[in-house]
Amino acid sequence: MGHGIKALVFDVFGTLVDWRNSVAREGEAWGGPRGLKVDWYAFADAWRGAYHPSMDKVRKGERPWTILDILHRETLDRLLDQFGITGLTEDEKDHWNRVWHRLTPWPDTVPGLLALKPKFILATASNGNVGLLLNMAKNAGMPFDTILSAELCQHYKPDPVMYRSLYTFLGLKPHEVLMTAAHNSDLVAASKQGLSTAFFPRPTEYGPAQEKDKKAEHDFTFVATDLIDLARQLRAI
Amino acid sequence: MGHGIKALVFDVFGTLVDWRNSVAREGEAWGGPRGLKVDWYAFADAWRGAYHPSMDKVRKGERPWTILDILHRETLDRLLDQFGITGLTEDEKDHWNRVWHRLTPWPDTVPGLLALKPKFILATASNGNVGLLLNMAKNAGMPFDTILSAELCQHYKPDPVMYRSLYTFLGLKPHEVLMTAAHNSDLVAASKQGLSTAFFPRPTEYGPAQEKDKKAEHDFTFVATDLIDLARQLRAI
Repeated sequence: MGHGIKALVFDVFGTLVDWRNSVAREGEAWGGPRGLKVDWYAFADAWRGAYHPSMDKVRKGERPWTILDILHRETLDRLLDQFGITGLTEDEKDHWNRVWHRLTPWPDTVPGLLALKPKFILATASNGNVGLLLNMAKNAGMPFDTILSAELCQHYKPDPVMYRSLYTFLGLKPHEVLMTAAHNSDLVAASKQGLSTAFFPRPTEYGPAQEKDKKAEHDFTFVATDLIDLARQLRAI
Repeated sequence: MGHGIKALVFDVFGTLVDWRNSVAREGEAWGGPRGLKVDWYAFADAWRGAYHPSMDKVRKGERPWTILDILHRETLDRLLDQFGITGLTEDEKDHWNRVWHRLTPWPDTVPGLLALKPKFILATASNGNVGLLLNMAKNAGMPFDTILSAELCQHYKPDPVMYRSLYTFLGLKPHEVLMTAAHNSDLVAASKQGLSTAFFPRPTEYGPAQEKDKKAEHDFTFVATDLIDLARQLRAI
């Protein structure tokens, strides 16, 4: 094929793991026995809904560099109040905040990564902090060779610095690095920095009513149905 | 045991891989057929001998941050001249410089890491740049969960910033991180930043006449005979 890809770097939330069902199911399992009447899918959506706005304050320099664990916690404290969930100890709040360290992979994620691993360097390329991603990878069995994160360059995606940090740290040429995501905007931003791009959809990431990112909207290097299909296109299966 | 260790972070050159024999043997295999009369052990020792002085210029601020691949290459260019090795193409020089990406692990390294992997987060804690360490890990089958490197904080060991970056990136308390090395000075510097410490000797790292680092000279958290013994002490075997 002559694609020259040496490393795959992955968006994580949504692309590799199913944050919405993971957060909601853990909420139901925790809140049910406590008799809490909470719409945990709404809770998950609200938590994720604060993701971009909270990072944007950092990206625009309205506050100094802050890792995602702290942004998540600030949102959680607000949501607990908003959803009327009271009386949690500090340890319980911390455990809840770390639900983002325990997200469940989509069914094709781990088999796809395992197939790709012998032929390619595999790394995250996520706005999650290193500790969060490392715990998630260990917990879910996602066999990355290393964790690359916005934390390492103190710039959140889609800042160009973040994409450039990926090939710089890997010691590779931009086109040798394949940014892999289920989000068109992430790949467009990566492409502007010279990275190769791979898209596959996660049509229910945001729930059954999801409208965006159902398909590739640009001319990416690879367009696949899921990670296993991408591994096949890369001749790793 | 109640040691509370959650992650092991490893010095790499000397502790996990045998740089001296790796470089010398590759020199012999390459130089022999070309009729070169070079003492490749002296060549390896001279190359490694420039390691600390070259990093010290960066550490003292005499030059801006420079990754180890570049420091290695500057030394290589000087040594090729000094050892009378001439006529190499740029590709050959680059391949030679990347001998540091192809170092061979000591016999207990990979089995030790594999035993530790299910129970602990495993990371490098090396002055090697990320790309170098990643290629080395992939080539040697060393199953790290992530690559932590001086490159990520732009401070070479033994700068305190480098040791503090390890537990910061991992999201752990200092004592939960076990700095593991065959070098007393590395561990003393790590200990000053609150990390737990593990020593085992590599008595021939510098060749048969090695005098230093034959044994633990301080009261480290763990003292072992090799990585497998350390894994046993940590109840991972």
